[in-house]
Amino acid sequence: MTSAVSKVLAHVDATLDDSLDRLKGLLRIPSISTDPAFAADCDRCADWLVDALIDLGFDAAKHPTPGHPMVLGRSDFDEDDDAPHILFYGHYDVQPVDPLNLWHRDPFDPQVQDTPAGRVIRGRGAADDKGQLMTFVEACRAWIAVHGELPLNVTMFFEGEEESGSPSLVPYMQARADDLKADIALICDTGMFDPQTPAITTTLRGLAKLELVITGPDKDLHSGSFGGAARNPAHVLARILADLHDEDGRVTLDGFYDGVPELTNAQRAQWESLGFDAAGFLGGVGLSVPAGEKGRSVLEMIWSRPTCEVNGMTSGYTGAGFKTVLPSKASAKVSFRLVGTQDPQAVLAAFRKHVDARLPADCTAEILDADGSAAITMAIDDPAFEAARLALSAEWPRPAAFIGCGGSIPVAGYFKSILGMDAMLIGFGRDDDQIHSPNEKYDLESFHKGIRSWVRVIDALAQG
Amino acid sequence: MTSAVSKVLAHVDATLDDSLDRLKGLLRIPSISTDPAFAADCDRCADWLVDALIDLGFDAAKHPTPGHPMVLGRSDFDEDDDAPHILFYGHYDVQPVDPLNLWHRDPFDPQVQDTPAGRVIRGRGAADDKGQLMTFVEACRAWIAVHGELPLNVTMFFEGEEESGSPSLVPYMQARADDLKADIALICDTGMFDPQTPAITTTLRGLAKLELVITGPDKDLHSGSFGGAARNPAHVLARILADLHDEDGRVTLDGFYDGVPELTNAQRAQWESLGFDAAGFLGGVGLSVPAGEKGRSVLEMIWSRPTCEVNGMTSGYTGAGFKTVLPSKASAKVSFRLVGTQDPQAVLAAFRKHVDARLPADCTAEILDADGSAAITMAIDDPAFEAARLALSAEWPRPAAFIGCGGSIPVAGYFKSILGMDAMLIGFGRDDDQIHSPNEKYDLESFHKGIRSWVRVIDALAQG
Repeated sequence: MTSAVSKVLAHVDATLDDSLDRLKGLLRIPSISTDPAFAADCDRCADWLVDALIDLGFDAAKHPTPGHPMVLGRSDFDEDDDAPHILFYGHYDVQPVDPLNLWHRDPFDPQVQDTPAGRVIRGRGAADDKGQLMTFVEACRAWIAVHGELPLNVTMFFEGEEESGSPSLVPYMQARADDLKADIALICDTGMFDPQTPAITTTLRGLAKLELVITGPDKDLHSGSFGGAARNPAHVLARILADLHDEDGRVTLDGFYDGVPELTNAQRAQWESLGFDAAGFLGGVGLSVPAGEKGRSVLEMIWSRPTCEVNGMTSGYTGAGFKTVLPSKASAKVSFRLVGTQDPQAVLAAFRKHVDARLPADCTAEILDADGSAAITMAIDDPAFEAARLALSAEWPRPAAFIGCGGSIPVAGYFKSILGMDAMLIGFGRDDDQIHSPNEKYDLESFHKGIRSWVRVIDALAQG
Repeated sequence: MTSAVSKVLAHVDATLDDSLDRLKGLLRIPSISTDPAFAADCDRCADWLVDALIDLGFDAAKHPTPGHPMVLGRSDFDEDDDAPHILFYGHYDVQPVDPLNLWHRDPFDPQVQDTPAGRVIRGRGAADDKGQLMTFVEACRAWIAVHGELPLNVTMFFEGEEESGSPSLVPYMQARADDLKADIALICDTGMFDPQTPAITTTLRGLAKLELVITGPDKDLHSGSFGGAARNPAHVLARILADLHDEDGRVTLDGFYDGVPELTNAQRAQWESLGFDAAGFLGGVGLSVPAGEKGRSVLEMIWSRPTCEVNGMTSGYTGAGFKTVLPSKASAKVSFRLVGTQDPQAVLAAFRKHVDARLPADCTAEILDADGSAAITMAIDDPAFEAARLALSAEWPRPAAFIGCGGSIPVAGYFKSILGMDAMLIGFGRDDDQIHSPNEKYDLESFHKGIRSWVRVIDALAQG
């Protein structure tokens, strides 16, 4: 470790309380993007971040969109400077807090609490994503405090609509392509492999989703008067959904596995070396037997295999008591996680075929809100990935792992498709952070060592 | 027709407006039994009926129950009178009126309206069951007005909890068995075969019902983090429900068809002679292809075959938009219509076995609110049935039919099981009465010719 880095790390340690106070300030702003009642708070949150960047000496501004504003800031550098240039992305908006009665305290009055597993910062957005984005901001602050400047060029880009589908993101990235272009994008919205093992996420599953509505009779019927003779759309839906998987847990849609790669031996060996605790992973949610495809490990299933899941379904009478209705409609929300080069549109088309093949003459099937995005595989051959991996490994008890992620983070794909930039996902969240749920938290260790991690990664990328 | 009867019929015709005014008075009382806010109205409705019976010269009283009161009245007769003794049953409570915004006017301000199909009385309870029960009361009134007395002995028994599951009915019938015993029970809560053809309903399907709840993970999960590896209870439920029927529409439960009789040739011939319009029946609800068992006619399916229907199901996220949740629970309300000597308890046990056989190790299945009642077959060999059939045939354009009914009217079974009495179901409802729905109506013709029908049936039974 260079002495330039060790001085910055010492500064991070010495000023952690101040960093924490700033994070608390950000967490106090209820920037819930999906609820129009909080639009002014989202705006205020963007202002807060612009001020924080200006305080670092950045050239920063809030950019309006049809939704909530973007925040864009650049460290002070010349265009012809040939130091590496990194762009950091985070989002300042948060999920709604309902059901509020399940929170043990005000979600927007953040507090540091002692827990059996260590100290945590409790509050909405603590982990997703305010705590994570502040690890990067505070790392830059420490560099600048110690050395007067950053060792490379930095653009910071904060979005305020990530939790509500990012409607303004693509148009903004297209319009501001010149301002956003850098050598690589860093995204801090993912987790550690485990509390000892930092991680760089190298694959993100894609997502195809739709709502299916089956209509039979033109109104709900009395099951005594019509039962037997009238087609029940709940039965039709049950058949369609049951037939989506075969007995071995494979998805039955035609061509579904086209473009699904097998793990390389190297990947398989690396993943096996992680010692993933499949029993603990399932046990944590009350399960003990892996579902999914026969013969695949749990880690494979969540990181590298495609899925089909029913996310919701409803039909007929679902209130208290009983109503012997024969429903007019039955509907389900279905989504697919995609990997490799699976084509979301082909998957949606195969689903439509699957439905049509099971639709009795008397029923209609509507497919609503169908859309999809492909899986993303990061450019891990880029030397920046190995440099970052070594930097992270120096900070934490165990070496950093290249891991997969079962979820979908579309912005990583947009950096590639719109700006031609690779993206690297590094984050310090833990599985038990309760993001999107009541009592969200971020471990103080995640915050502290997260800041220190970025100090090291910034140094490593500056050498590149 | 005897002149005794023709005088009564003439009186019915001459005083129809008064009869209608009395029905309107009854319809103005919002006797919604399921909603505690209307308890006083139910009580008031019982008082109204007691007064109406006293006005006929009956010895009548309101009897409290843990729920809404029963009304019991007897015409003035000696115990050792050997004239036939009939008991008439009806219910004075009505269904709730929501959604109120779909009513074209106040549900409890009844009105006579002209429609393309004739004049109707519009209002909650017009058909179910206040209009129907008043056909009998008004028939008795006309007999008494003309002849000073009824030609046989009559007990009237009105319940106020039929629309909320009749919780007090069995205990009341057991406690008052001596007061309720008669030669035969008449029930007016069913329909005509078609507007020209009166009907005596001779079979009622039984009902077995339950709610099934499948639990997988102990909380809703993120489908990105857990999808593939974690068991999805919506998939398990879909499989269980899809497997309830085979490709020929038969119910697959073990032993389900035990006790299901085939139609006799005589029944088949009589039903065929009715000229049932299957295309019109299905077309009226937007369908064109009969569902259900292959090779069975629509009439067979709704009158004489058992069914299994999903009445409701729900799982995961069902609101607007999308939430990629992997649900913790999935549930369905399922009911079976039973015929012949099918045993409801055996059907429920077979369902449990069907579920258990499809339950993965990690899931639990709870079965809630399971109960059932067997099908009822009337004693059509009793000469009263043929006498009533001839009386009805004299009133209407077409001869009366013995028909089946797909629904379940448990009280008919209780008369047999508790009091040892046969029951005869005669009613004047039409398929389009919109009972349980907004804008309920009863045709003025149903009311008028219904009263006249009972005048004739009373006369016919008095001869027996």
